[in-house]
Amino acid sequence: MTKTSQEIKFIEGGVCAPRGFRANGIHCGIRKNKSKRDLALIFSETLCNAAAVYTRNIVFGAPITVTKDSLSNGKAKAVVCNSGIANTCNPDGLEKALAMRAITANGLGIAPEDIIIASTGVIGLPLNLEPVENGMKTLVEGLSEGGSDFAAQAIMTTDTRKKEYAVEFTLDGKTCSIGAIAKGSGMICPDMATMLCFMTTDADITLPALQSALTAAVKVSFNMLSIDGDTSTNDMASIMANGLAGNNPVEAGSNDFEVFKNALTALCIKVAREMARDGEGATKLLECIVEGAADDESAGIMAKSVIKSSLVKTAVFGEDANWGRIICAMGYSGVKFDVDKVSISFESEGGKVAVCENGKALNFSEEKAAKVLAKDEIVIRAALNEAKGRAVAFGCDLTYDYVKINGDYRT
Amino acid sequence: MTKTSQEIKFIEGGVCAPRGFRANGIHCGIRKNKSKRDLALIFSETLCNAAAVYTRNIVFGAPITVTKDSLSNGKAKAVVCNSGIANTCNPDGLEKALAMRAITANGLGIAPEDIIIASTGVIGLPLNLEPVENGMKTLVEGLSEGGSDFAAQAIMTTDTRKKEYAVEFTLDGKTCSIGAIAKGSGMICPDMATMLCFMTTDADITLPALQSALTAAVKVSFNMLSIDGDTSTNDMASIMANGLAGNNPVEAGSNDFEVFKNALTALCIKVAREMARDGEGATKLLECIVEGAADDESAGIMAKSVIKSSLVKTAVFGEDANWGRIICAMGYSGVKFDVDKVSISFESEGGKVAVCENGKALNFSEEKAAKVLAKDEIVIRAALNEAKGRAVAFGCDLTYDYVKINGDYRT
Repeated sequence: MTKTSQEIKFIEGGVCAPRGFRANGIHCGIRKNKSKRDLALIFSETLCNAAAVYTRNIVFGAPITVTKDSLSNGKAKAVVCNSGIANTCNPDGLEKALAMRAITANGLGIAPEDIIIASTGVIGLPLNLEPVENGMKTLVEGLSEGGSDFAAQAIMTTDTRKKEYAVEFTLDGKTCSIGAIAKGSGMICPDMATMLCFMTTDADITLPALQSALTAAVKVSFNMLSIDGDTSTNDMASIMANGLAGNNPVEAGSNDFEVFKNALTALCIKVAREMARDGEGATKLLECIVEGAADDESAGIMAKSVIKSSLVKTAVFGEDANWGRIICAMGYSGVKFDVDKVSISFESEGGKVAVCENGKALNFSEEKAAKVLAKDEIVIRAALNEAKGRAVAFGCDLTYDYVKINGDYRT
Repeated sequence: MTKTSQEIKFIEGGVCAPRGFRANGIHCGIRKNKSKRDLALIFSETLCNAAAVYTRNIVFGAPITVTKDSLSNGKAKAVVCNSGIANTCNPDGLEKALAMRAITANGLGIAPEDIIIASTGVIGLPLNLEPVENGMKTLVEGLSEGGSDFAAQAIMTTDTRKKEYAVEFTLDGKTCSIGAIAKGSGMICPDMATMLCFMTTDADITLPALQSALTAAVKVSFNMLSIDGDTSTNDMASIMANGLAGNNPVEAGSNDFEVFKNALTALCIKVAREMARDGEGATKLLECIVEGAADDESAGIMAKSVIKSSLVKTAVFGEDANWGRIICAMGYSGVKFDVDKVSISFESEGGKVAVCENGKALNFSEEKAAKVLAKDEIVIRAALNEAKGRAVAFGCDLTYDYVKINGDYRT
């Protein structure tokens, strides 16, 4: 249980940490491997305000279309998600996504329009609904307040670690929480519908405030995450708020809104960092902090350019303090800046080593740099010394195993 | 000797194929390995019209600044280039680049302003000019009409193959040629000043026409080449035209201009393709043709998005017909298009296999796909069936060896 500012506390329980949510995950048979759960369900006793953000790829999966339909009134009671098949670029994709929503609605005895639906897996292979139909009864009957674990397992694809987190905070004197399950070895793999994050909260919050907080949190977390720059066709982050905490409804612009937004942001950043750490083939979590830029947006563009550079990523894998690649990636980012004011350092639990000042090489100790770069979490800090713009991007190193995993994923 | 349209013929001789050019390359001592030539010189007997294009990275090497100064009057007589050190982001970079130009001018007995200068190697390490000073006499004395080979060797860094080509064509009844030497394992490696291409021609051509032809040729060759999306700090392509062929001077907009431009374009595309084939760690040359787009520019953006995708590149390495990654990369390129009209196929000497039609999966033969993808040159063809925009991008696969080469380049 680590604490962040504003009394935000990380707690156990994932999407079932907030009151009134149950979850489950089973192996229904979409995947051949019987030991891998492949169908997840999250259910709220009461109708929730619900918001989501989606992939910006203009090629997107049929489940995205159906979820947008479900959330058109800003309400939801459940999330259903399969792994193994993305249900994207299939001739019958929309039909199948609607049918999957209907099967789930039937199983839960609720309206189809109250269900958020997602699929994650290979693009262009047909989704077989028979296992979903056959498994729905078991899935629904197994819903429990301890079920976040199984749901988190069921949405995993190449993830090597389950991603299930929750935060606790206080609104209006009431203890509230937000829980999340997520999948994604980073933004790596579009044919695996890379990134999904389903969140739940018992905070009472209006729909506009919920959507606004989600957008703000995603901007500095998932949208600052890159493993290889490939944006998935099925990416989605959603949140359902059931209001069971009993606080006065949070309105956008209020103090409570800031508290909620900060808690949600802390949770999303935690998930994004864990995705980066679990990036396909990754051995190191990489964070690039750009500060002193003209504005936050410029800082963000530069930080992402650095984090996406294959050369920076391979250098970090090789534990090589090759900072020329960092200033180079900043240089081609499209942002104008004064090269002669740039300072760059590497930081980790192993210490800090400054490698560039005023845009020029520093005579640094290679021994010290090696010690810093030997650690598992590396921070690249680039100071522009121009103004106060700041951003942080999350990524990982590029390794042999990334090539191996993606060289023959489909076969 | 292969023929292209308009009687453009590939010939031997590199930068010395055109009349009046001599070249040389020696080991002067910038690099420790004595068997690796590290200093190149190209010399024209007569003053040339000269044009160049440069990296768009706002972080660029001191040699770029000095070459821009040299070419401010559009004239040059020589090119000098070292490998091993990029002379970029060094406190004394500009001073050293000017000194290197002066040493060369002294050795050749010409004005410093008539010299194009370039450096390629690690960023942020100091350039030692002593070896250049000591080696200049030998370098100049060894200039010969058979010296293109040595010059091409001297500018190589991680290149595994020397890049030296020339084309022959007819202008105004006179046989003309354009020669090139180049270095670059693709746009891979910014700290190695990835891409340099020095060209020579004996065609008589006005300066505006020369610059215009170079810009047009680079647009569809080097600017459509990507190995990993990293744009070098020291990239440069230059051409010197000495007019010794005796044709009437080529003016922009004339028929002869089209002939010259086509010959130059054929040469630049040849160099770009060979750079892609020799991409660091590459086992396959990858070409993406996007056709039927709204316009050529949109087609180019999509073709480059595909060629840059780490997921497409690893799939090609794994010989996996994972076309979902291709349509996905088109989808996040930023270009709007009708997904339901897209057709995709893989082509090679092994045949052709269509994998997607009207944006949906085709039921293709995996056996046939494997046969197509087993070859060394793979074409990805994406037809948008909207209008007549077309572009071709060049790249290569992403392999274990790329990671290996770049994981510990500097150390």
